[in-house]
Amino acid sequence: MGVLRFGQLGKLKPEKIEEYCALHANPWPEVLETIKQCNMRNYSIYLHGDLVFAYFEYVGEDFDADMQKMDNDPITKKWWEHTHPCFIEYAIHPASQFYHDMKPIFYYE
Amino acid sequence: MGVLRFGQLGKLKPEKIEEYCALHANPWPEVLETIKQCNMRNYSIYLHGDLVFAYFEYVGEDFDADMQKMDNDPITKKWWEHTHPCFIEYAIHPASQFYHDMKPIFYYE
Repeated sequence: MGVLRFGQLGKLKPEKIEEYCALHANPWPEVLETIKQCNMRNYSIYLHGDLVFAYFEYVGEDFDADMQKMDNDPITKKWWEHTHPCFIEYAIHPASQFYHDMKPIFYYE
Repeated sequence: MGVLRFGQLGKLKPEKIEEYCALHANPWPEVLETIKQCNMRNYSIYLHGDLVFAYFEYVGEDFDADMQKMDNDPITKKWWEHTHPCFIEYAIHPASQFYHDMKPIFYYE
């Protein structure tokens, strides 16, 4: 399997934008380690107004299994107790509680 | 100089979304070659509704000079005659006619 690229959009509560940025300016080392263990690479997040855009690459062999592994990590769960309340849930798409996968329309290596 | 990462947001005219996607599904080879010559790498664009997000990495030594080189390329100028009218100009930020650089708030390799 080649590299999979993800572009995701989310919407923050205006009063939580600062907190979301502060959390990501000093992310927990265990959370970063889990990201690596779950085969996510080159992960960046960008802000404009209340919109956040996340880009990352998945380099593993079983995306669903790795996401399940992340879901099951107790420290990541704790981290999400801080980050998830920053989002306006389902703001981008009715099927996506936080970040929503955008449609890729162009790629050039 | 290390790699610079860019996350950019733009807004399309609703009636031009399909055309913008079609253009980027079959980009002109000369435009891709200019992207490469201007030291932009790993370039992807994502769509949600009328919002487009672009991610790319800059691996050169002089970003302004390379962007000037791109601006001066006659085929890229022709390409932009097709892509630029797809945008609602200045929709994201009063200083950005098309794509606007978002603020990076997180990066993990």
